[in-house]
Amino acid sequence: MADALTRNFGSDNVSPVCAPILAAIQAANAGPSGSYGADPFTERLTGVAAKLFETDVLIYPVATGTAANALALSQISPPFGGIYCHTGAHIVTDECGAPEFYTGGAKLLGLPSTTGKIGPQALSAAVAFAEEMGVHHVRPSAVSVTQATELGTVYGLPELSALTAAAKRHGLNVHMDGARFANALVRLGCTPAEATWKRGVDVLSLGASKNGALCAEAVVFFNRPLAEGFERRRKQAGHLWSKLRYLSCQLLAYLEDGLWLRNAAQANAMAARLARGLAELPFASLLQNVEANEVFVALPEKLIERLEKADFHFYRWPLIEVSEGAAVRLVASYATSEADVDDFLREIRKLA
Amino acid sequence: MADALTRNFGSDNVSPVCAPILAAIQAANAGPSGSYGADPFTERLTGVAAKLFETDVLIYPVATGTAANALALSQISPPFGGIYCHTGAHIVTDECGAPEFYTGGAKLLGLPSTTGKIGPQALSAAVAFAEEMGVHHVRPSAVSVTQATELGTVYGLPELSALTAAAKRHGLNVHMDGARFANALVRLGCTPAEATWKRGVDVLSLGASKNGALCAEAVVFFNRPLAEGFERRRKQAGHLWSKLRYLSCQLLAYLEDGLWLRNAAQANAMAARLARGLAELPFASLLQNVEANEVFVALPEKLIERLEKADFHFYRWPLIEVSEGAAVRLVASYATSEADVDDFLREIRKLA
Amino acid sequence: MADALTRNFGSDNVSPVCAPILAAIQAANAGPSGSYGADPFTERLTGVAAKLFETDVLIYPVATGTAANALALSQISPPFGGIYCHTGAHIVTDECGAPEFYTGGAKLLGLPSTTGKIGPQALSAAVAFAEEMGVHHVRPSAVSVTQATELGTVYGLPELSALTAAAKRHGLNVHMDGARFANALVRLGCTPAEATWKRGVDVLSLGASKNGALCAEAVVFFNRPLAEGFERRRKQAGHLWSKLRYLSCQLLAYLEDGLWLRNAAQANAMAARLARGLAELPFASLLQNVEANEVFVALPEKLIERLEKADFHFYRWPLIEVSEGAAVRLVASYATSEADVDDFLREIRKLA
Amino acid sequence: MADALTRNFGSDNVSPVCAPILAAIQAANAGPSGSYGADPFTERLTGVAAKLFETDVLIYPVATGTAANALALSQISPPFGGIYCHTGAHIVTDECGAPEFYTGGAKLLGLPSTTGKIGPQALSAAVAFAEEMGVHHVRPSAVSVTQATELGTVYGLPELSALTAAAKRHGLNVHMDGARFANALVRLGCTPAEATWKRGVDVLSLGASKNGALCAEAVVFFNRPLAEGFERRRKQAGHLWSKLRYLSCQLLAYLEDGLWLRNAAQANAMAARLARGLAELPFASLLQNVEANEVFVALPEKLIERLEKADFHFYRWPLIEVSEGAAVRLVASYATSEADVDDFLREIRKLA
Repeated sequence: MADALTRNFGSDNVSPVCAPILAAIQAANAGPSGSYGADPFTERLTGVAAKLFETDVLIYPVATGTAANALALSQISPPFGGIYCHTGAHIVTDECGAPEFYTGGAKLLGLPSTTGKIGPQALSAAVAFAEEMGVHHVRPSAVSVTQATELGTVYGLPELSALTAAAKRHGLNVHMDGARFANALVRLGCTPAEATWKRGVDVLSLGASKNGALCAEAVVFFNRPLAEGFERRRKQAGHLWSKLRYLSCQLLAYLEDGLWLRNAAQANAMAARLARGLAELPFASLLQNVEANEVFVALPEKLIERLEKADFHFYRWPLIEVSEGAAVRLVASYATSEADVDDFLREIRKLA
Repeated sequence: MADALTRNFGSDNVSPVCAPILAAIQAANAGPSGSYGADPFTERLTGVAAKLFETDVLIYPVATGTAANALALSQISPPFGGIYCHTGAHIVTDECGAPEFYTGGAKLLGLPSTTGKIGPQALSAAVAFAEEMGVHHVRPSAVSVTQATELGTVYGLPELSALTAAAKRHGLNVHMDGARFANALVRLGCTPAEATWKRGVDVLSLGASKNGALCAEAVVFFNRPLAEGFERRRKQAGHLWSKLRYLSCQLLAYLEDGLWLRNAAQANAMAARLARGLAELPFASLLQNVEANEVFVALPEKLIERLEKADFHFYRWPLIEVSEGAAVRLVASYATSEADVDDFLREIRKLA
Repeated sequence: MADALTRNFGSDNVSPVCAPILAAIQAANAGPSGSYGADPFTERLTGVAAKLFETDVLIYPVATGTAANALALSQISPPFGGIYCHTGAHIVTDECGAPEFYTGGAKLLGLPSTTGKIGPQALSAAVAFAEEMGVHHVRPSAVSVTQATELGTVYGLPELSALTAAAKRHGLNVHMDGARFANALVRLGCTPAEATWKRGVDVLSLGASKNGALCAEAVVFFNRPLAEGFERRRKQAGHLWSKLRYLSCQLLAYLEDGLWLRNAAQANAMAARLARGLAELPFASLLQNVEANEVFVALPEKLIERLEKADFHFYRWPLIEVSEGAAVRLVASYATSEADVDDFLREIRKLA
Repeated sequence: MADALTRNFGSDNVSPVCAPILAAIQAANAGPSGSYGADPFTERLTGVAAKLFETDVLIYPVATGTAANALALSQISPPFGGIYCHTGAHIVTDECGAPEFYTGGAKLLGLPSTTGKIGPQALSAAVAFAEEMGVHHVRPSAVSVTQATELGTVYGLPELSALTAAAKRHGLNVHMDGARFANALVRLGCTPAEATWKRGVDVLSLGASKNGALCAEAVVFFNRPLAEGFERRRKQAGHLWSKLRYLSCQLLAYLEDGLWLRNAAQANAMAARLARGLAELPFASLLQNVEANEVFVALPEKLIERLEKADFHFYRWPLIEVSEGAAVRLVASYATSEADVDDFLREIRKLA
């Protein structure tokens, strides 16, 4: 009974649950099990995460990315704090004020850039301004980096190190919004540890929903003291499931045998295939480096309309200004096939 | 890999997902589908709920009972409001301050009673006190009734009418915490409409997780103006799933063909069977009328310990003071069988 | 143009500003001065407080007792915390949910007693219950003691030590609501240090408004790390005055040369005089020990009405149940004279 | 004992209390008076404000501008709301997150401009973007205009009408931050009614502290239903004084016989005199129209340093970028004299 979302390049979150994760949910249903995390799945998750990240971590499953981000941020900024991030970060544009609500009033301080990334100079300048303003300005408390970014780019490891080094100099905690962390990891080709705590990340929102899960994200604390009280914070927010095993088992299936990387590799490859195809078209201009599973491209207005009529699903992206035509975002997911991409490329040529 | 929670009378939330609901989740996984509720399951849910409740309702799925309660309460009380409820209500004792957090500071004003119910006289007296205190006291804003109550009793329809009539006289909105609403409905033998809005209930937290769902509750507004802004409130709280269809399909399977009542009837019947068996034992004293799926019974301390050693799972209930022995809560669920009950009754006789 | 509040025993907050404090405000008005605390009055206040309390303290002036309490509590309890206090504490009954609002959702956990005080056994029992409930219960975070209490009694130093010792064992921060701290200090006859940090108090709401100031309270941190971020918290709450000197100068005049103790001594003496007079009347029953500036007495209903008709101002106190007549609270302030008290005693005899 | 803040052009909030307001405080101190607003001063204030604004208003005194703004905004935006304002508005840059805290999470949505004003086109475009984003974006709820602006300019009446008309079309409530409302009114030369509710303003933060009061602002509701619950909100925030008469009497003295306009006229005239003098200097460039009591001027860096060494107090204004030298803000207050201005102009010529 799913609706006819064929030709889908709208979002990775419209894809169905991938088979191994659905199978894990069924397997977890063999009988009664302890509630609120007192179950073997949740208990095993911490060990699995520690092995994966090569360090003792604290990992807490929640059902949505907004919850993961907002709960994480509320651990690292007081109500009177400021959180630096990109002006187009998901926490700014797409979470309906969740960080402000969860922190009890903290302010998101946007730093602009054309690539979706923020850099150490802009961060330091903003902190210097705050210090000059004193008590009238929120307290510089944290920086939130999105990896991969909202514009489909990926911070390189040296870029990340430079940014977090600046953050640490200013006494800021570092959050990583990893709604598409697996996509970034595949791009970087490094270990999860090298991409996070070895770069100075204190807490990670680790996404799975966009990459094949039913509803699973995790808040992962590398800086364990920052997790103090987190269990009650999650409970108070209504984000502690009674039957938590059904969340934890998704994360186990996702992380334990490399499913997350296989899914992300497929999504990234399909975005790259799309980008390669689009690069050959004279009427299309790629607007960002395609480093994960998103492609931003400028297309003529007429062509966009024809694609829409042909039942292709995607979003226009007004936040990117282009001189001619309009910016469009195309997203590939683990469920996107070569045939899907080739169909799009064939049709766009035909409709142009 | 579920743990050996045999002989489980601890809670209805340790039971697995019942088969029709798991099947519904699988069926919803046929392909891509719109996100954030733009899917055919969620779209169908409102109509199903309207038919069930015989009136236009607004229904919003969320994953936990704490979320349902706290979000509902934040719609009907300002930060400077007071919410009247039983001193032992789940929102007071088991939600780690979620109502206070979500409302931005409202106060839960507990009214004591031995039955788990609150009555119109106590409510009116409390409101009168508030009015005398004026601006120094939070504003009387809402009353929250739990149906079935935390002590396994069920408000009769006249009782409910009398309470909500008093609430309306005082200008209070009426919330019903229906974590075990199906169990109450089975007991009452009336329609969902008769048990809710026809009695003056404005908004219902309709539970499914304890009665067979994986993770599904719904906030149901009968008083539609009170729902104003709810969608953004849910989003801001991180309780809007991207793949909402997997929540909505659970509720459809739960409500559409009577599964909720069949499951609740089984749970209630097993609690009644337990109660009948216990009533015959000279060393056991039933402490509350058994009107839903929970049994509260006083047992000798030694016997409690022997039951625990025999791997029976249940909770002591220190909130009920008894003169001899200790109070114990036994909960039946949809998954409890006659054999489970008879096993318990056989063993308790043997161990006594 | 003040209204005819003669025969006032209603509250100590209806008294006017005492002369030395008004003079201090005028003296501070000689010319321009730095804003937001960059003025010589505010700068001097910390030193004065340190000398008075015989230790390095951090002292922050605010205009109301509710602000002082709520801001202090928000420093020592997270949103998911619990704050133990007397069921009749001002923070529970008279601040319209300010602590819940400022902490972002913490719960006030009331401990009952007939004397207005809480004891270590009740505290420990409540903490033990919380620990058993685990994540579902707010985290035991702080205890708030009112000194003098809302019932006009005063914790003795050993009582206070026993309570704070229990608090520390349970990891709780200790707040003292000292809206009438000067009255307690006069009663105890000890130094400010002996009455606070030497007894384990971490943070004090030090009141002046009820004892002669125009509008001045101070949050005094003995446990300095707990003050971290307080300046921004006060600013964010709108409680940092631009012309802060006019608040600070009140506190200097209040504290520097003993005015606070002289005023409190007068108020206490007048309450004692009232109590002695009432004790001789066969139709009056004192309901609490009179240890500060408040007298609680049971009087016949008819007599109460006659006193009201004779323009005496006072409050009935329904929170104290009495077998005959009604409970009444009579408050003396620094501005109450022997003639005022004798007038009351003369009239009550006449009207009886 | 005030510090040597001679040659002060730093802020209008460093000036002392003007004589008539200090006299009013003394006059209010004749004896006891009802607390929490039950006093003749507070009772008279509503009538005075109604006469002044030529309509029934609700007026609530508070002690700080941040409190007035944040409390007002929390009445007109839900936690999931968005409040449009200038990017450099005081509520954005100088209140340490107070609006976010008081609203429980609302977002300030900054609209840039070089003049400190926002216009209807920018507002409509921002609302259109929000509507496209739907539930992921905070709900457009209110617009906050600063009059006079933070850059010393004043919205003309037609400008204001155009903006509020757009706001009303989009269903937005209109707040005016009138920290310097009297200065704007003097500039406009119209009645208070013409400058506010006749232009569509729903609620006004009416400042007095910068214009001669000790600590007095008022929240004035023209749209009375929006004030619903305000008294408890103010109480819960700790902004209801027990001895409220000492706040109310300041506002009476300020408003009743034209003191507010006389003070503002003096401040404006002195700013104009400064601007005229600076306009004649070849090395100084005025950066904004001088329409109230603030002058923004670009000066050579060396000259700025010499002025500082000569004990002139003022702020550099890094938010305004200039091609040469640096931007400086000079503020005149009711207490600024022609001699003060002429002294500055003489010295700057000498030091140049």
